Amino acid sequence: MKIETKTAHFSSPLYLESGRILEPYEIAYETYGELNEEKNNVVLVCHALSGSHHAAGTYEGDRKAGWWDGLIGDGKAIDTTKYFVICTNVLGSCFGSTGPMSANYPSEEPYRLRFPVVTVKDMIRAQMQLLSSLGIYHLRAIVGGSMGGMQALQFAVDYPNFADDIISLAATYATRPWTMSFNKVAMEAIRRDPRFKHGNYARDAFKEEGLDGLAIGRIAGHISYLSPDSMDDKFGRNYVSNDGLFELFGRYEVERYMEYNTNNFSRIFDPLSYLYIVRRSIRLI
Amino acid sequence: MKIETKTAHFSSPLYLESGRILEPYEIAYETYGELNEEKNNVVLVCHALSGSHHAAGTYEGDRKAGWWDGLIGDGKAIDTTKYFVICTNVLGSCFGSTGPMSANYPSEEPYRLRFPVVTVKDMIRAQMQLLSSLGIYHLRAIVGGSMGGMQALQFAVDYPNFADDIISLAATYATRPWTMSFNKVAMEAIRRDPRFKHGNYARDAFKEEGLDGLAIGRIAGHISYLSPDSMDDKFGRNYVSNDGLFELFGRYEVERYMEYNTNNFSRIFDPLSYLYIVRRSIRLI
Repeated sequence: MKIETKTAHFSSPLYLESGRILEPYEIAYETYGELNEEKNNVVLVCHALSGSHHAAGTYEGDRKAGWWDGLIGDGKAIDTTKYFVICTNVLGSCFGSTGPMSANYPSEEPYRLRFPVVTVKDMIRAQMQLLSSLGIYHLRAIVGGSMGGMQALQFAVDYPNFADDIISLAATYATRPWTMSFNKVAMEAIRRDPRFKHGNYARDAFKEEGLDGLAIGRIAGHISYLSPDSMDDKFGRNYVSNDGLFELFGRYEVERYMEYNTNNFSRIFDPLSYLYIVRRSIRLI
Repeated sequence: MKIETKTAHFSSPLYLESGRILEPYEIAYETYGELNEEKNNVVLVCHALSGSHHAAGTYEGDRKAGWWDGLIGDGKAIDTTKYFVICTNVLGSCFGSTGPMSANYPSEEPYRLRFPVVTVKDMIRAQMQLLSSLGIYHLRAIVGGSMGGMQALQFAVDYPNFADDIISLAATYATRPWTMSFNKVAMEAIRRDPRFKHGNYARDAFKEEGLDGLAIGRIAGHISYLSPDSMDDKFGRNYVSNDGLFELFGRYEVERYMEYNTNNFSRIFDPLSYLYIVRRSIRLI
């Protein structure tokens, strides 16, 4: 499956729920399969907090396929021999769509903390603009998990006849205070990290050594992605074999897992985008 | 109820589970009520992770009473007209018992990260030494919640006939990976905070401005102290009235609660002690 990132440029204003306006803005996306003549075979896939528009296929030189490659493809659950699948990078993210590190037109300087707060409602409004620009006015289905599921649900609320089916997985119509608290850990950890510099870090500042605050916030995130029981099954109380049980920083397997997943992440994901996306993900309606 | 902190000095060695030895060491404690002649009216109260030996009564000038003042006192559940109640500060803590900021005898320099890892088993062994030194060889009851409950349980395992009753509340015999992960947030947040300086901070470094890493880790801790449902009841999705809904750092009530509780804490509690105590609290047997 040949894949490429496309970017749609919009010079029309995007009116945000906050009353602020994004103009211009861009939406990065990938597509899989072929759009039929009637344009009625479209499935929109929405990504979660840390995801991107790269949902399926493998780029040349990449080790890993897109995040839902197991579900999207020829003969797979979301069958690309039948459906034309679109996945867009959400507004505020750091993989090609307009976000806090995009230029604050007409300046060439990034928005940084001047970027407006965007909501799930704003996010799907931007996706509607993209779909319109492609001449798509009806969807076969909208599918997503977690924050992607919140987007699917928001489509159902705001545009009730737009899709035949809404498949909203592991989602909610309103984030509860328990989840807000996990997000709070991430926001405080990023905000208080001296290398975050109140958002005024250099663009490539964290490529080599990720921002600690983001890694720490991500550990909190990972707790909320696993249940206590699944952690028992996955890790038990096993100790990392070459760590000493009586070393202060000796680790249990679950701790190694957290380190592995979060240190990498903090080199890849932009901390300003993370702030905006966790802030956004707490509101749906 | 007149209260005072007493400190017991021990010049005999304390053999730790790790194989290391603490010598000398000190245990800070408070007592309430009167020891009877038979010395058979003693109740030992064990404190939780962030607690101290100050379980009841109010020091002159203090706004707040000890952490279990509602339960301990004349005519209260743990009735000091009948019982002689003892509460000790656990080994490794920062309220008077030997911990990482104590002098590493014969040097006058603090142990800092050279302090040995201590376990719940070690912690109760130290308490046994204190009780022996007071001529107390049997307890009416041992009571504690959370890490205090783990200590009560460990007493039952290691010294099965030592107390008539063991009251272990909100505790566990073995911390699960889910809880270890919350502790991991705290450990990483402290360890990676530049002001922590690998444990080489000045003794009063955080009196004015608490260590961010400790405050962040404490937010994660607070998540685990409340259930999702109780958070719904307590905070709902209410927004702090003078914060803007579309401000990036605008707060929900639950976020304000987390800030309030953790910023204060980070000025009071020693970060090295916190590291050692969360590390300890993950092992019981």
